[in-house]
Amino acid sequence: MKLGLIGLGKMGFNLAQNLLSSGHETAVYDVDPAPGERLAGKGAIPVRSLQKLVEQLEAPRIIWMMVPAGTVVGNVISELKPLLSPGDVLIDGGNSHYKESMARAKQLDETGVHYFDVGTSGGTSGAAEGGSFMIGGSKEVFERIEPLFQDMAVPKGYLYAGPNGSGHFLKMVHNGIEYGMMQAIAEGFEILDKSDFDFNYEEVARVWSNGSVVRGWLMELAESAFAKDAKLDGIKGVMQSSGEGKWTVETAMDLQVSAPIIAMSLLMRYRSLEEDTFHGKVVAALRNEFGGHSVVTSE
Amino acid sequence: MKLGLIGLGKMGFNLAQNLLSSGHETAVYDVDPAPGERLAGKGAIPVRSLQKLVEQLEAPRIIWMMVPAGTVVGNVISELKPLLSPGDVLIDGGNSHYKESMARAKQLDETGVHYFDVGTSGGTSGAAEGGSFMIGGSKEVFERIEPLFQDMAVPKGYLYAGPNGSGHFLKMVHNGIEYGMMQAIAEGFEILDKSDFDFNYEEVARVWSNGSVVRGWLMELAESAFAKDAKLDGIKGVMQSSGEGKWTVETAMDLQVSAPIIAMSLLMRYRSLEEDTFHGKVVAALRNEFGGHSVVTSE
Amino acid sequence: MKLGLIGLGKMGFNLAQNLLSSGHETAVYDVDPAPGERLAGKGAIPVRSLQKLVEQLEAPRIIWMMVPAGTVVGNVISELKPLLSPGDVLIDGGNSHYKESMARAKQLDETGVHYFDVGTSGGTSGAAEGGSFMIGGSKEVFERIEPLFQDMAVPKGYLYAGPNGSGHFLKMVHNGIEYGMMQAIAEGFEILDKSDFDFNYEEVARVWSNGSVVRGWLMELAESAFAKDAKLDGIKGVMQSSGEGKWTVETAMDLQVSAPIIAMSLLMRYRSLEEDTFHGKVVAALRNEFGGHSVVTSE
Amino acid sequence: MKLGLIGLGKMGFNLAQNLLSSGHETAVYDVDPAPGERLAGKGAIPVRSLQKLVEQLEAPRIIWMMVPAGTVVGNVISELKPLLSPGDVLIDGGNSHYKESMARAKQLDETGVHYFDVGTSGGTSGAAEGGSFMIGGSKEVFERIEPLFQDMAVPKGYLYAGPNGSGHFLKMVHNGIEYGMMQAIAEGFEILDKSDFDFNYEEVARVWSNGSVVRGWLMELAESAFAKDAKLDGIKGVMQSSGEGKWTVETAMDLQVSAPIIAMSLLMRYRSLEEDTFHGKVVAALRNEFGGHSVVTSE
Repeated sequence: MKLGLIGLGKMGFNLAQNLLSSGHETAVYDVDPAPGERLAGKGAIPVRSLQKLVEQLEAPRIIWMMVPAGTVVGNVISELKPLLSPGDVLIDGGNSHYKESMARAKQLDETGVHYFDVGTSGGTSGAAEGGSFMIGGSKEVFERIEPLFQDMAVPKGYLYAGPNGSGHFLKMVHNGIEYGMMQAIAEGFEILDKSDFDFNYEEVARVWSNGSVVRGWLMELAESAFAKDAKLDGIKGVMQSSGEGKWTVETAMDLQVSAPIIAMSLLMRYRSLEEDTFHGKVVAALRNEFGGHSVVTSE
Repeated sequence: MKLGLIGLGKMGFNLAQNLLSSGHETAVYDVDPAPGERLAGKGAIPVRSLQKLVEQLEAPRIIWMMVPAGTVVGNVISELKPLLSPGDVLIDGGNSHYKESMARAKQLDETGVHYFDVGTSGGTSGAAEGGSFMIGGSKEVFERIEPLFQDMAVPKGYLYAGPNGSGHFLKMVHNGIEYGMMQAIAEGFEILDKSDFDFNYEEVARVWSNGSVVRGWLMELAESAFAKDAKLDGIKGVMQSSGEGKWTVETAMDLQVSAPIIAMSLLMRYRSLEEDTFHGKVVAALRNEFGGHSVVTSE
Repeated sequence: MKLGLIGLGKMGFNLAQNLLSSGHETAVYDVDPAPGERLAGKGAIPVRSLQKLVEQLEAPRIIWMMVPAGTVVGNVISELKPLLSPGDVLIDGGNSHYKESMARAKQLDETGVHYFDVGTSGGTSGAAEGGSFMIGGSKEVFERIEPLFQDMAVPKGYLYAGPNGSGHFLKMVHNGIEYGMMQAIAEGFEILDKSDFDFNYEEVARVWSNGSVVRGWLMELAESAFAKDAKLDGIKGVMQSSGEGKWTVETAMDLQVSAPIIAMSLLMRYRSLEEDTFHGKVVAALRNEFGGHSVVTSE
Repeated sequence: MKLGLIGLGKMGFNLAQNLLSSGHETAVYDVDPAPGERLAGKGAIPVRSLQKLVEQLEAPRIIWMMVPAGTVVGNVISELKPLLSPGDVLIDGGNSHYKESMARAKQLDETGVHYFDVGTSGGTSGAAEGGSFMIGGSKEVFERIEPLFQDMAVPKGYLYAGPNGSGHFLKMVHNGIEYGMMQAIAEGFEILDKSDFDFNYEEVARVWSNGSVVRGWLMELAESAFAKDAKLDGIKGVMQSSGEGKWTVETAMDLQVSAPIIAMSLLMRYRSLEEDTFHGKVVAALRNEFGGHSVVTSE
């Protein structure tokens, strides 16, 4: 098939390689010309504007956005909207909030453009070699773009999930689960680390990756990480987050779901951003007040 | 190799099949004669007492216990101890507390018997077809029994973890991680279930099992469970636990490790055992006291 | 002083009594005429419309709203806005979201009306006999209405907190703390309840209310609740919530504050609304899948 | 009454003052002679050995131990045991584990000595001026020592809780609640601290201490702490713990009580002891592995 791809960051660049290796004719655009030029060597058609991208394709077009969620997605849509024709398909493959995707789909539907919210999982390697895709949008139109997913996903690795919003909703919850699983694995290794035993974490991650109940890709990645840095001495335990975990907790609260694991995984990430905490100071001060327990003074 | 196997429950029976299919000559014992007789058809040598089991084997013997942790393990060891000879190997493949295993190893060491604490993971299917083994005990003696693990484990699926206790310690922490991962997955599906979307959970578990970041055996098992009962209508959300999760949290506290995910996973299991809670009554009563908020009365 | 009071529910009715007993001339309005008529006997001036309420007062007026947060507050303001004059003071004494209060203050400021967001604590008895007030709005104008708070609050029981929003922000966080304190107390009593000892909870709450570190009003209320129903047999542990706890957690997440106690207190309230949970079903199903652990079937 | 007091640390010294001011004839002993000498000025009878202490008193004696839980209590009892006579009363007013107290009571009972486990709350000021006491032991013998509690406690501030163990059990749970309440209050102030508002925490603690739902001694202590150091700049948020919170969580798990607030309060204390965490490193490493998310490197 022929399609356009907007956004050639870590994920978009790899998706482009994935598409090109499957023989899809791919026009690519990024604000930075460099990745497009590199992809040209692999058969991509780099263009230097969204207008040019649209012109490269014949209606009904298929355009895949792989740009940062939030304002960037919004800006790209605003610029694309007047250029698109009824029947065109516009795909948001990033991590947009599902409610925003629902609103965008509704808005584009008025101009006859079919919007798809597609959650993309599998990391950068999955994007390049075969990932997992959760797809929300029109069931009927989906059949038109299904061949793309057949090529980009690992076998059984895509799902038409339902109407608009369902794709990004699934991806959001997937990320919430991911937060919980990562924190569970990480707590386990911390218990090993504080124990009196002298475990080789790479070996532990390997045995847990082979035949055990907790085997899975995250454990394999742990093995890989420990192979590079046996005790992770080179990195600090600062756990950034990019929004989907928070959205999952907010959504859980809106739905009155008790989701303590996902919530605590997020809160421990926030905790990790602090060197010291105000709540800690308050508790220490209170203990001093009632029991005369000594406090650790700051220099 | 030739060895004895004590305990032919779900795990032991499957391990016996695993050993027999690899050509190991296996004398088997269980208080119930039925499973031993069934295994006889597959080449096992069923015996009707621990004494007979020991007599079946020549010193230095290898005996694998696969019996319930706690008093049963203790009783079997007490009965075996006078029957064993210096140089014999006794393996506890169950879920004993690592501190108990350390004490038992020390005690048996005085009689020259080599004790191994082996954490066995992979569930019943893993026991039968290839599991994951975490092994604590003498490194030197381990080499003598290593061929067993090469046959019983999946490739890369066994680890000599260190001195006595380390095998069961690893298995304990593995189970703690398992609690957290299961609860994370389960919370995710509950959010799906309470949402306005109409997801097919089997399909969701399938797409998450193929190419996604959260792929792994537990997600595959979720797919399998939903394939049998699409909304799990047939089962209640009562989450039993068998000890290792609790031990992991206790150990974390002893080591002053903050392990909120594993702890909350355990506490939610306890919560699930209750139809109603006393803490809920207290909070409801307090809200009524200060704000006149109505309570739900019990019939 | 002379003022108008809108909303004569549990809190508003008691505030009216409080104001009247301090000699404030109070015009009162509620959609239901009954509470106003009852208050007339205590000196209130009941009116039957917001228009009449405004007419009862001379500019610059002081009007206190004590109506449900959300649409009701919004509707009352919409109806009042054209009736008010520059210099009038409008107070929202309810549990509005602080961001809504900030927006309303800005909007009313354009017409010269001074808005105050006032968090009111102390429960229904506090409203009647002396509560605690957290006040956000113009510092200068505050001095004009301060005598009201001097009369309605217990000594030291009011605070000019800062610009608009700060009053309701403080009240929101106060309620988050309240959730945590209540859940902490409630968990303590559940541990007593499951123990082998046979405690008299009323007596326990009494000794903890007198001289202990955890003494405070909530513990006194626990004593009062147990005095009425020694084991709380008559009520179910369903813990409703009315929004401020959720807002506190949402705000904590927006500010990247790790607030596990407040978050878990909220999530346990949601948990208490369920007889059974989908996450429990998933965990039970997974245990059955990998280990053959039996599930509890639903009838 | 006449009694002996062993242990003149922060709590014991203050209790001695309390007893002396009520006119009780008090023989006092501590390994350090200094506090006893200071108390002599207030009427105490300082002695320089446990033997001398016992000799100062006539059978049936009353002896109150106020020494560190664990080995010190054990050692004192071992030394006292041969010196005591049947009918003597020995009180442990410290924070011993209730199971240890039950075992000690049983052991002393064999020699006819009546043991009481007494939980003492109210902090150092409470010890001096009137605290809260939870008393486990023989109901009949309790009546003999009740006058002491009538004098040392605030009104209604003591409770005969039941047989041995119940006093220290109640105190343990009290401390668990205390952990949760302190953490709840502390999280609230952290949310204030990260907000855009500019609150005066001393004033906030004051208004919350007067008339609000969350009023209580801990909030008053917060006011006092902020009065000394407005933003707690001088202290670090390191939250030590001395055992009772951990015991409460362990007990909750033994009783299968879901006590997330008390558990999380404890785990956050452990978290505060770390500058960096291994679980944080693992999560950061995993994010880097699958998504190429950058990590913060350690110097």
